Amino acid sequence: MGGDHGLEVTIPATLSFLDSHPRATALLVGRRDEILAALGARGDHPRLTVVHAEQVIGMDEAPAQALRNKRDSSMRVAIRLVKDGAADACISAGNTGALMAISRFVLKTLDGIDRPAIASPLPNEKGGITTMLDLGANVDSTPEHLLQFAILGSALVAALQEIERPSVGLLNIGEEAIKGNDVVKRAADLLRASPLNFYGNVEGNDIYKGTTDVVVCDGFVGNVALKASEGVAHLIAVFIKEEFTRGPLAKLAAAMAMPVLKRFKRRVDPARLNGAALLGLRGIVIKSHGGAGVQAFEAALQRGYDAADHRLLERTIAAMEPFREQLQGGVEPMTES
Amino acid sequence: MGGDHGLEVTIPATLSFLDSHPRATALLVGRRDEILAALGARGDHPRLTVVHAEQVIGMDEAPAQALRNKRDSSMRVAIRLVKDGAADACISAGNTGALMAISRFVLKTLDGIDRPAIASPLPNEKGGITTMLDLGANVDSTPEHLLQFAILGSALVAALQEIERPSVGLLNIGEEAIKGNDVVKRAADLLRASPLNFYGNVEGNDIYKGTTDVVVCDGFVGNVALKASEGVAHLIAVFIKEEFTRGPLAKLAAAMAMPVLKRFKRRVDPARLNGAALLGLRGIVIKSHGGAGVQAFEAALQRGYDAADHRLLERTIAAMEPFREQLQGGVEPMTES
Repeated sequence: MGGDHGLEVTIPATLSFLDSHPRATALLVGRRDEILAALGARGDHPRLTVVHAEQVIGMDEAPAQALRNKRDSSMRVAIRLVKDGAADACISAGNTGALMAISRFVLKTLDGIDRPAIASPLPNEKGGITTMLDLGANVDSTPEHLLQFAILGSALVAALQEIERPSVGLLNIGEEAIKGNDVVKRAADLLRASPLNFYGNVEGNDIYKGTTDVVVCDGFVGNVALKASEGVAHLIAVFIKEEFTRGPLAKLAAAMAMPVLKRFKRRVDPARLNGAALLGLRGIVIKSHGGAGVQAFEAALQRGYDAADHRLLERTIAAMEPFREQLQGGVEPMTES
Repeated sequence: MGGDHGLEVTIPATLSFLDSHPRATALLVGRRDEILAALGARGDHPRLTVVHAEQVIGMDEAPAQALRNKRDSSMRVAIRLVKDGAADACISAGNTGALMAISRFVLKTLDGIDRPAIASPLPNEKGGITTMLDLGANVDSTPEHLLQFAILGSALVAALQEIERPSVGLLNIGEEAIKGNDVVKRAADLLRASPLNFYGNVEGNDIYKGTTDVVVCDGFVGNVALKASEGVAHLIAVFIKEEFTRGPLAKLAAAMAMPVLKRFKRRVDPARLNGAALLGLRGIVIKSHGGAGVQAFEAALQRGYDAADHRLLERTIAAMEPFREQLQGGVEPMTES
């Protein structure tokens, strides 16, 4: 039900995904009548089930409010399906804060993980993917949190990209007198002593250089870096457009260059890499961009499918094993009221 | 003497700057013989003086080391000229950490300012400039530090862009459950209660949207955001180049689009906005990119000239006045050994 476009996007994306994945089955959670109307003739698809949920969480609704007052929201019902083992993954384009709060409350975190983290795939110059976390779920992260993010991100990349020992970089600042704050320095010590494939410190530009497979940072820093990156990409797009429409000669050049510009646009299109993973939970939850179109939402479905298919949870739990003792102390238990 | 290109860049840039600024005089600080050789026939320029300094600080030298061991470095002599009133501003393309450490040590900070901050002009979609600080001089900033950055950035924009009450945004994260960390929340309270033109919280993409004239953040966050931005811009440049050289048709399109692409490149060229200000000191110090070319270094000279010409220091001291009592407690006094 969620996202900026609701069923207009989620339904066609799901149908297209089912068509190209013969082993996949979909549980569409939300208002049955609306979903059936949107499905139309495809409502009788054999690998598709509609699960009714009366409530919908608004995109701007306060997460705590949504958690307390909407026990029958589509989001909550979908996450409960994961908890109950009826679904292998939950994919949502809805309210990020609510998705995080409800996931954490219903699914709980894995042993040794204090709080879930948000991990996103970003394009890099090597033509590959850099996975960055946390992107805003945690502020004021401790060194232990950063270690947890590194373990989670590593397991995600190992599962989704079939890289045995993904390299992990710790986001830091380089040039200045004081290289990083205390938290980062202590996190580097923890990472260096761990069995992870720790590369060392990386700087902001290394994310897009593709220096490491995983980049670990505090959620405040990661969120700002991600949004600044989006801002620059948008600024450049605006400038390109302005230059290519400045007078008839530029417009002619634009017409000539159109196939190239289109290929370029496709390449930097965030749709291709849509689908952030909420990691550290006892279940797979993928967050699609709220503004995702059909193709982008399908990419998010693909990520959820791959994570389940490549046994992300089992891999994560195995990856946590060497840290069991080290991290056990930090668990904040939560109980469903 | 500093920067990646040394005198090859700084000398021609200075000569060109003097030619276009008839009221300007230049003090070239460094090894006299080398400077005179580089000046050649222009060595007798009436508004140009060579000030000898034997030592040069390396680009990778540890700032503490440079501060302790190189009392006769070109950087230190140049900063001392500012302290003594012989120069109105010091412009350097050298080692940032050393420039910061020596500036702080020799010039001292203004009353009420704990540590200097680095402020850079960034392009925005409105076709204007967003000034962001701190960009790496301070990590683990307190709310009071963020308030200081806001005052300093505001005064800089007022002086350089002739904007009477520049709008100030506080860099924060928006989407998630927890909006920002404690430091940012308390900084917002301080800013709201101040006479500054405080806009409120802004997010990473607002830097390039141009939502506010000034964006204030901790140096760790700012440095990461800036480097991530540079990384994205580089990634996009690489992708554009790859697409425009992929086969003969794309190359033809590139030839057609060349004037447009060149105009675009000029527009996003960091040279245009080169020159970060080290703020909060009892003197004007401008840091040029180490890799700056002649044109870029000239832009840094221009910023130093404008800051002096528009009485940045007096304006900053006046802007500090309403905060005198509030900030007085936080001063860390430093004495030259």
